Amino acid sequence: MTPTLRLNAFLLGVGHHDAAWRHPRTEPRRITELAHFVELARTAERGALDSVLLADGLSVGPDIRHRVPPVFEPLTLLAALATATEHIGLIASVSTTWNEPFHVARQLASLDHLSGGRAGWNIVSSGQEREAANFNRDRQPDHPDRYRRAAEFVDVAVKLWDSWEDDALVLNAGAGVSVDTGRVHEIDHWGADFQVRGPLTTPRSPQGRPLLVQTDPPADGIRTAARHVEAVFTVQQTLTEAQAFYGGLKRQLVAAGRNPDLVPIMAGITPVIGGTEAEAHALAAELEALVVPHQALAQLSTALGVDLFGLPLDGPLPELAPVRAGQARLNRYRLLTDLARREGLTIRQTIGRFDGSRGYRVVAGTPEQIADQIERWFTQGAADGFNVMPPYLPDGLTDFVDQVVPILRARGLFRTEYTGRTLRDHYGLPRPANIYTAAPAPALVTA
Amino acid sequence: MTPTLRLNAFLLGVGHHDAAWRHPRTEPRRITELAHFVELARTAERGALDSVLLADGLSVGPDIRHRVPPVFEPLTLLAALATATEHIGLIASVSTTWNEPFHVARQLASLDHLSGGRAGWNIVSSGQEREAANFNRDRQPDHPDRYRRAAEFVDVAVKLWDSWEDDALVLNAGAGVSVDTGRVHEIDHWGADFQVRGPLTTPRSPQGRPLLVQTDPPADGIRTAARHVEAVFTVQQTLTEAQAFYGGLKRQLVAAGRNPDLVPIMAGITPVIGGTEAEAHALAAELEALVVPHQALAQLSTALGVDLFGLPLDGPLPELAPVRAGQARLNRYRLLTDLARREGLTIRQTIGRFDGSRGYRVVAGTPEQIADQIERWFTQGAADGFNVMPPYLPDGLTDFVDQVVPILRARGLFRTEYTGRTLRDHYGLPRPANIYTAAPAPALVTA
Repeated sequence: MTPTLRLNAFLLGVGHHDAAWRHPRTEPRRITELAHFVELARTAERGALDSVLLADGLSVGPDIRHRVPPVFEPLTLLAALATATEHIGLIASVSTTWNEPFHVARQLASLDHLSGGRAGWNIVSSGQEREAANFNRDRQPDHPDRYRRAAEFVDVAVKLWDSWEDDALVLNAGAGVSVDTGRVHEIDHWGADFQVRGPLTTPRSPQGRPLLVQTDPPADGIRTAARHVEAVFTVQQTLTEAQAFYGGLKRQLVAAGRNPDLVPIMAGITPVIGGTEAEAHALAAELEALVVPHQALAQLSTALGVDLFGLPLDGPLPELAPVRAGQARLNRYRLLTDLARREGLTIRQTIGRFDGSRGYRVVAGTPEQIADQIERWFTQGAADGFNVMPPYLPDGLTDFVDQVVPILRARGLFRTEYTGRTLRDHYGLPRPANIYTAAPAPALVTA
Repeated sequence: MTPTLRLNAFLLGVGHHDAAWRHPRTEPRRITELAHFVELARTAERGALDSVLLADGLSVGPDIRHRVPPVFEPLTLLAALATATEHIGLIASVSTTWNEPFHVARQLASLDHLSGGRAGWNIVSSGQEREAANFNRDRQPDHPDRYRRAAEFVDVAVKLWDSWEDDALVLNAGAGVSVDTGRVHEIDHWGADFQVRGPLTTPRSPQGRPLLVQTDPPADGIRTAARHVEAVFTVQQTLTEAQAFYGGLKRQLVAAGRNPDLVPIMAGITPVIGGTEAEAHALAAELEALVVPHQALAQLSTALGVDLFGLPLDGPLPELAPVRAGQARLNRYRLLTDLARREGLTIRQTIGRFDGSRGYRVVAGTPEQIADQIERWFTQGAADGFNVMPPYLPDGLTDFVDQVVPILRARGLFRTEYTGRTLRDHYGLPRPANIYTAAPAPALVTA
């Protein structure tokens, strides 16, 4: 395991704060420009960050009125960024709920080939009714069905990536043999959600498979995904909570027969950077003041599953229903519920906490103070790395790279340059063995 | 309509000749390198060609033993090429058979945004049993079902691209209004194959929609697709056949209420270029000699739907069954059947014709002779442009751009530089009006 922490930059529009696009430090029209994202990826690469991450979303609703919409789809945008960068990992969020594993495996393998081994997959599932309605359904599958499907989806994808052994592409021009079809396997998967014969259309990619990431896994999600997941991105508010999650997850990994050192846990952090602590807090307050209350109420109503319109903003939150097993966005809901109960928050206060970062941890301060927080969590068993979610872009990322990263380097916590070639190299993870190289499996037989 | 012809470069591995990868003029290992495709796209752009095209394929079978496999998936590769080029159109073949219109519309819109309006979609359907087996089915849908699905698929995609009016993204920071949701529409599509609520997640793209292309349409395919298709790529062997197809299709377009001048027809051509005619024919013969007979027999058996193994190579083709309506690859089959009957070909001769270009027209000669052929077809009502399929790559494309294109320019048949910005500009086609701007449609209502 590498001794230094991992840093991912989560790129989202002109920033993670919902009101970032209204702040004078951003130019919201840039969300439509490839050049904006090229600049962000190159800034992250200049800081020798491990990876960039893009979110997925398969619907927009009326709340888009007060937010900047997504413009680019993650896999196509990351492929475009592959040409504009050399080292940085490229992690795409792709849903398992409304996709077919063959397409997803093929596009991710293509991205891994295109980027010379820098592709990652943040495995997400889609939990909104509006998304279902774009895919021939009137409602989303229940929570357990979605996670069962997700686990089988990943199994199929792994089989497809491994369906070509590494040395199957022989290209022996003299003999006229391009592919050793004895080393290309039909996967013959026959499961509850998917029946896939294979092989994949493409030779095994530089990393063997893209790096498999899961964000914010629910208890049953991590259990089913524990076979393959190689990095976990998570939302934690306090050091104590983060340590408990970290310890619990590492124990689950051990129980599942995995080496816990080879599954880094990345905690989300929204750094609000100021020259002084007061400047940082002023900036956070500026952003807060730009939030559109109507949007915040709508978003919080959706997250909590209760209608907050008409209730006094400075009154308490209404009684919240206990979490049901089938509930969408289960973890985020749990987080909010816990937060509101623990601190006895009013509706306005809850909005304030939620809106700046959708529940992620906000740290406002000087570069030194932010580096302190990162070091504390990293050295005290709360995180192996951080998912950096700048409140506004590009400046929030530029400031992090130019002001926080040098401090982390000076403390010996982060690399000064890339030492490996692939995303797995950056994360300090081995290239996975091919499941078919060891185990006999039906090969493609020449007719 | 622009007075000059259109030229598309169809990029495929190290060339369109099945044996190209065995020829000393190619380096087959380059099929795994992005740099190879960047070089090809830049060469085409240096020639001011209109577009590049990538093929799709959702399965590989045992015949991959003697062919180079696909490595990159079209949408991801074209997105990567978008960053490496400035002008040239980027046309992705994407199947309507095993995809969802929401995903395809979203990725193509993303490519159009990424490339500043250079995306095109070659609308294909998947007709092989092996493809069905990768998507939970044991057999392909019947021919009429596939084309009905394709037509509805395109309808849904068009509605999704138009679900955002052009001026819906207002980004009014002062008012806190990012999107004018009155100009974003739910499409509420409810059809036989798809039920899609919409809107798309992304604002309308620079071209409004990607350029819609159809290749080699069967009679019923063009009828259903005639509403939206904006360019047709076709396979024709002789001037007479090409003229008949061209005239017939233009009449069908008129009957469907379309302006036939705004639907260019692009004929496939495989130029084998030599310094002299003799050199060109020698090169063609070299490639022919490298064909692996076993592969050619397998491929021809599949195309004709009869088992040719065990029959004498210099004997006649066996009796071929009449074409059935539900037959996969209907047009290619018809072409082969006609060719074999008309010329009384032996099995070996049929292989020779088929293998170099999968049924496409091969023209071997000097640059002058190839330009003559292009001029003749263009001026005699057989084609509005050409889909150039170099037998080997990159040299076959480089030779075409450096040796044939200058002759076409000297004759006033082709542009010397790009005059427009988008793929539609290059093809001389207008940006499509938004179907929802004129017609009232349900808008996204703010909750």
